[in-house]
Amino acid sequence: MSKQILVLPGDGIGPEIMAEAVKVLQLANDKFELGFELSYDELGGAAVDKYGVPLADETLERARAADAILLGAVGGPKWDKIDPAIRPERGLLKIRSELGLFGNLRPALLYPQLADASSLKPEIVAGLDILIVRELTGGIYFGKPRESKVLENGERMAYDTLPYSESEIRRIAKVGFDMAMVRNKKLCSVDKANVLASSQLWRAVVEEVAKDYPEVELSHMYVDNAAMQLVRAPKQFDVIVTDNMFGDILSDEASMLTGSIGMLPSASLDAGNKGMYEPCHGSAPDIAGQGIANPVATILSVSMMLRYSFNQVAAADAIERAVSDVLDQGLRTGDIWSEGCNKVGTQAMGDAVVAAL
Amino acid sequence: MSKQILVLPGDGIGPEIMAEAVKVLQLANDKFELGFELSYDELGGAAVDKYGVPLADETLERARAADAILLGAVGGPKWDKIDPAIRPERGLLKIRSELGLFGNLRPALLYPQLADASSLKPEIVAGLDILIVRELTGGIYFGKPRESKVLENGERMAYDTLPYSESEIRRIAKVGFDMAMVRNKKLCSVDKANVLASSQLWRAVVEEVAKDYPEVELSHMYVDNAAMQLVRAPKQFDVIVTDNMFGDILSDEASMLTGSIGMLPSASLDAGNKGMYEPCHGSAPDIAGQGIANPVATILSVSMMLRYSFNQVAAADAIERAVSDVLDQGLRTGDIWSEGCNKVGTQAMGDAVVAAL
Ligand SMILES: CC(C)[C@H](C(=O)O)[C@@H](O)C(=O)O
Ligand SMILES: CC(C)[C@H](C(=O)O)[C@@H](O)C(=O)O
Repeated sequence: MSKQILVLPGDGIGPEIMAEAVKVLQLANDKFELGFELSYDELGGAAVDKYGVPLADETLERARAADAILLGAVGGPKWDKIDPAIRPERGLLKIRSELGLFGNLRPALLYPQLADASSLKPEIVAGLDILIVRELTGGIYFGKPRESKVLENGERMAYDTLPYSESEIRRIAKVGFDMAMVRNKKLCSVDKANVLASSQLWRAVVEEVAKDYPEVELSHMYVDNAAMQLVRAPKQFDVIVTDNMFGDILSDEASMLTGSIGMLPSASLDAGNKGMYEPCHGSAPDIAGQGIANPVATILSVSMMLRYSFNQVAAADAIERAVSDVLDQGLRTGDIWSEGCNKVGTQAMGDAVVAAL
Repeated sequence: MSKQILVLPGDGIGPEIMAEAVKVLQLANDKFELGFELSYDELGGAAVDKYGVPLADETLERARAADAILLGAVGGPKWDKIDPAIRPERGLLKIRSELGLFGNLRPALLYPQLADASSLKPEIVAGLDILIVRELTGGIYFGKPRESKVLENGERMAYDTLPYSESEIRRIAKVGFDMAMVRNKKLCSVDKANVLASSQLWRAVVEEVAKDYPEVELSHMYVDNAAMQLVRAPKQFDVIVTDNMFGDILSDEASMLTGSIGMLPSASLDAGNKGMYEPCHGSAPDIAGQGIANPVATILSVSMMLRYSFNQVAAADAIERAVSDVLDQGLRTGDIWSEGCNKVGTQAMGDAVVAAL
């Protein structure tokens, strides 16, 4: 039975890096007889240009019908001044929410070949392998009411709401524990329970879910401390589970610890492991169209897709090995280049992964 | 005319480090004829033990009457299981709010003598000198409504509210710009304006305030990117201004970049520059009572107090110089100790600063 993959190249470097990822996907498709059929559409600024909105209804329907979605990146200065309601990011937030992609997996993995790229001392980050599990469809990102208004005294004010329900917390906590079970069985739940009501419920529910995972060593940490510990001693962490906003902040911090954010993929999963896969980095408008962007994060997003949505472990492993081989060969795009390595462009990097596969 | 200083040693290592800071303060008082009178009270867990609440009304009255407040640190496992409404942190939040201490200054300064203490590469952090200006009495920390309830379907849910008014944003933005004016004239305002209504207002008001500070180079950054840039290239920042929650997270991250959080003081100021001064670090219950805690952050909090609340620049400078001299002498408490230095305890460190002064 054929599987439908919807490809959304997006904005900025999105189309360039996606072209390489699709090459890798097509090869894996043939080689491992995966039966994937690809179709293409737009999200973000490109969708604003084409449809007038960052996520068109027809695109959303295609996404619903697809078995998995591969996304490049969205946003750029071209759409910075438009009506906030149709900014590129709104398309991203809407597709996450409409498809119920609540489980966001963001690995922060340091490739031994790129140990020097980190701004941290080698001994602090060598072997770093953290997985951040971020709740992606709830919390302050989507909480209602939210409003901007003028008070009676003429002053403007605005507010957002940070809500969490037991079931929202329970399902993301389960993802956290499940991930910990297939890794090093250590889960750190991050909240701000000394201040926030929502965090107090978060902590209580995580404790309840923990009863079903007696093998997992659970700890709780306040978000300010977590931001600090990630800098001080990041290797203390295995899996971190946290809410939407804290996850946004901590996953970016954690990914930068590796110094090679151009290498990091991510997955956003629904309750049935249908998912959207995309690089951790953004659309990098400053280098778009130059053919120098690193396609590896998008290529590894393909590998995550094979692993999480299709359980194609052999194919996923093969892609990861191919990437590692290419690093061993000394090939580097500009973002991860260091003295003594061979600097190549987007396409050459993609071709090398294809060749290694 | 005499000035009243209220000293709140607090919990954990609080009393030990405060004893040293008070020695330094008393000496400065005599030497520079500052006319300070000190009185003592309790905050946090110590206040729970004495008064049954983490901030007693009479303590609050004393704090209101004082010209400045010197705080050690609050919290500890002893009070972890008590009614959340009277946990030690509630005392801290209440005193901030009741005294209107909205302007929180948190410097992240790397002492050249301690460059090795950082987990970051020396070239990334050498000379680091960032000031984080955190809004401290608004936002999600104090926003109403906040509630924990059971829905009709029997499910629990909880929510918090993140409100900001124009005047709250304006006054903290001014603090940010004023600080930038006496430093390197660069201000970065951190928000999440691509998602939050409150951040959109934040950004708009900061832009308005900017008109009064044409000399300051203003930039805006999303909080996730800021968390990343602090790791990647922290020296790009001079002053950062941000909201209560983002400031909590980013200031802890920034302070840890120095690797010597035991050296960092902070100030929380009201509209008239009356302030509460405290170390950035916590109450460190694990080492309390052992006489090994680093008193320098508290000693430097005295210096901040002299500078910001009393405009005693000479005395403030003298204390900072004394601390630097002690570092030059090779004296180190355990937290900042490295091979070849002389490891000393809390009291010896305090005595050395007194001697240098
Ligand atoms: C673009 C933005 C809305 C988005 C988010 O905050 O979730 C991005 O930062 C991310 O982390 O995927
Ligand atoms: C103890 C806690 C409530 C407090 C805060 O979050 O403000 C602390 O983390 C701080 O930064 O001073």
